[in-house]
Amino acid sequence: MNEDQLIGWLRRRTGSRSLGDDAAIVSGTGTWVVTMDTQISGVHFPPDLDPAQIARRLLAVNLSDLAAMGADPAYAFLALAVPSSFDHRRFFTALLRDCRRYRLELAGGDLARSATATAAMTLLGRPAGDRLLTRSAARPGDRLWLGGSVGEAAAGCRLVSRGARIVGRRVDLPREFAAAKNVERAARRAVRRHLSPKPQLALGRWLSACPRGAAIDVSDGLARDLHRLCAASGVGAELDLDRVPVPAELESLAPAVDCEWRDLAIAGGEDYVLLFTLPLQLEPPLHLQCTAVGSIHHGKQVLVRDQGRKARLGARGWDHLEPASTKKAP
Amino acid sequence: MNEDQLIGWLRRRTGSRSLGDDAAIVSGTGTWVVTMDTQISGVHFPPDLDPAQIARRLLAVNLSDLAAMGADPAYAFLALAVPSSFDHRRFFTALLRDCRRYRLELAGGDLARSATATAAMTLLGRPAGDRLLTRSAARPGDRLWLGGSVGEAAAGCRLVSRGARIVGRRVDLPREFAAAKNVERAARRAVRRHLSPKPQLALGRWLSACPRGAAIDVSDGLARDLHRLCAASGVGAELDLDRVPVPAELESLAPAVDCEWRDLAIAGGEDYVLLFTLPLQLEPPLHLQCTAVGSIHHGKQVLVRDQGRKARLGARGWDHLEPASTKKAP
Repeated sequence: MNEDQLIGWLRRRTGSRSLGDDAAIVSGTGTWVVTMDTQISGVHFPPDLDPAQIARRLLAVNLSDLAAMGADPAYAFLALAVPSSFDHRRFFTALLRDCRRYRLELAGGDLARSATATAAMTLLGRPAGDRLLTRSAARPGDRLWLGGSVGEAAAGCRLVSRGARIVGRRVDLPREFAAAKNVERAARRAVRRHLSPKPQLALGRWLSACPRGAAIDVSDGLARDLHRLCAASGVGAELDLDRVPVPAELESLAPAVDCEWRDLAIAGGEDYVLLFTLPLQLEPPLHLQCTAVGSIHHGKQVLVRDQGRKARLGARGWDHLEPASTKKAP
Repeated sequence: MNEDQLIGWLRRRTGSRSLGDDAAIVSGTGTWVVTMDTQISGVHFPPDLDPAQIARRLLAVNLSDLAAMGADPAYAFLALAVPSSFDHRRFFTALLRDCRRYRLELAGGDLARSATATAAMTLLGRPAGDRLLTRSAARPGDRLWLGGSVGEAAAGCRLVSRGARIVGRRVDLPREFAAAKNVERAARRAVRRHLSPKPQLALGRWLSACPRGAAIDVSDGLARDLHRLCAASGVGAELDLDRVPVPAELESLAPAVDCEWRDLAIAGGEDYVLLFTLPLQLEPPLHLQCTAVGSIHHGKQVLVRDQGRKARLGARGWDHLEPASTKKAP
C-alpha cells in the first residue's frame, strides 16, 4: 500500500472524515485534556516486536496519562515513522481495535519512513468527573496510594530485551527461563505486564469524582514519580516499602534477571499504575484494588520505611535524556 | 541538563503550568483544529542540521497545515526523541521564540532519546474566520490558485543534501555552487526556501472569511496535492503550467542539481504554499501575492496545459511510505 491507499483504507475502517485532510476538526464545548507520548524502537521496544503489540502499548501508555488526569479518551492522533518493511496493516488493525474498545476516534496524524521505528501519539480527552487530577494537589496529612503492584513490568522489560515475546496468546521465553520451572510463571506474567500495560482509566474516573487528591502515573519509577508528585505539591512523603504491593513471584524472578526485587519495585518504571493521594477519610472502593503505601507530610523530605528502618528515598528511575549506558541502575 | 531540569527550564521560560504534568488542560468553547507532523533526521533534514533550524522548520510545516485549514495557532505539543549529543537548549530557544511570534503556547509533550533524531509536533488551532477550509470544497467552475511560487524548495532540498547550510544569517554553499556565479544567488534563495518555509497563515485567514473554496498546502508536490484536492472534492482540474509561478532563477539552478525545473515545480514538494480554489467572482487581495493557475471542472481528469499542449497530469510527488530509493523521480 502507498500512503494514499493506506489513508483510504483507514478512512473506510474508521468512518472518520478528517483522516487525510491537513488537520482534524474537533468540536464540543468545555475543557480538553491533551497528552503526547512516544514509543521508539530500540528504546521502548525491541526492533523485531510485533507491530500489533507496538500499537497496543503506544495506546496504553498514552491512555495511562489520561487516567492520571481523570480524563476519558476521545480523539487520537498518530505520527508513525517506520522502515519500509513495517507491516502497517497489522499495526493499524490492532490500533483501531483498541481505539474502539476505549471509545477513541483516530482522527489524524502523519506517516513517514524512518530507519528507526518511532510512533508518537497525541490523545485528546474530556474530564471524566467534577475535577481534573494533577500532581500538585497533595496535602500534608493525605494518605499515599498505589493503584496496583510495581516491579513486574521492569523485570518483563529485561526479559523482552533478552528475547521474550508474546506470540499469539502465548509468552515465549528465552531458553534459560523456560527451563527454570520456579521462575517460568513469574516470567510470563512479567512479560505480559511489560508489553500489555493496562491503563487505570476506571481508577482515574473514580478519583476525578473525589473532592481532592493528587495523581501521577508510575512510568519512570515509583521513587522518581513520587519525588515529582511531592515537588509539584510542595510536600514531603513517607513511603512504606513493606506495604508496596509487589507480586510474591518477583522475589524469585528478580535474581534471574540480575536485579534485586526492591530495586525493580522502587525504580524499575513502566508500571503504569496510578500513584495518588487522598484525604484520610477517603478510600477507593475494594474492586479498584488499591493499596495505601504511605503518607504525605509537611516539608520536602521523601523518606522510605523498609523493615522498620527509615531512610531518604533517592529520586531513582528513568531519565529520558540520559543515554542508555548511563541509565541509573535501578 | 537531565529531563526534570530541562522541564523546569522550559516552565520558567514559558510560564506554562501544564508543562511537566501528565497532560495539559486546554479550555475554551467551540471548535479546535488539530494537526500533527514529523521531522526526521536523514529523511526531512540532514543529521548535522542546526537544532534551531530543526525546531523552526518543524513548527513551520505544522503551522502550514493550520493555514490550509484557515485556523489560527493556539497550543503546541512536542515529542522530541534525539541522541544524547543533541543541543536541547538551542532547539528550545529557537522553538520558544517562534512560538511567541505565532502566539502559540508550548503546552506539553514528551522527551526521549533515540539514535535517529525525530521530532513530532501536534498543534491545536482555532478557526480564524467564519468557516474552516477543507480539501473537499472545490466545485466545477472555480478558479485554481497558488499562494506562492513552487520548485525552489525542492532544489534547496537537493542543495542541503549536498552540504548547503544556513550558518547564522549566511547560506553556505558546497564549493561547486559557490564558484558558479550565475547560480549562486538562486542557490542561496532555494536553501532558505527549503530550510525556512513561511506558513501562509494570513492567506488561510483571508480564505476562511470567504464564503466558499477548497484549500490544501503543497507539501508533497503540486501535482500530487492537486490530485488529492480533486479526489476529495470529486472534481477534475486543469493546471496551466505557463501560469504557475516559478522563480526565473530556477531555470538556471535546476540543471546544477541535475533536475528539470518543470519537474521541481510540479513534483518537488515541500513548497508549503496554499493551493486553493475560489468561485470566479472572488480574488485574493494583491498583497497576498497569489496567482491563478488553472480551473476546476466536472469529471475526474486532472490535466496540465504546457506551452499550449494539454496532457494528463500524473499524481507525482512524495509518497511517505515509499523507501527513499524508489522515491518517484520528480
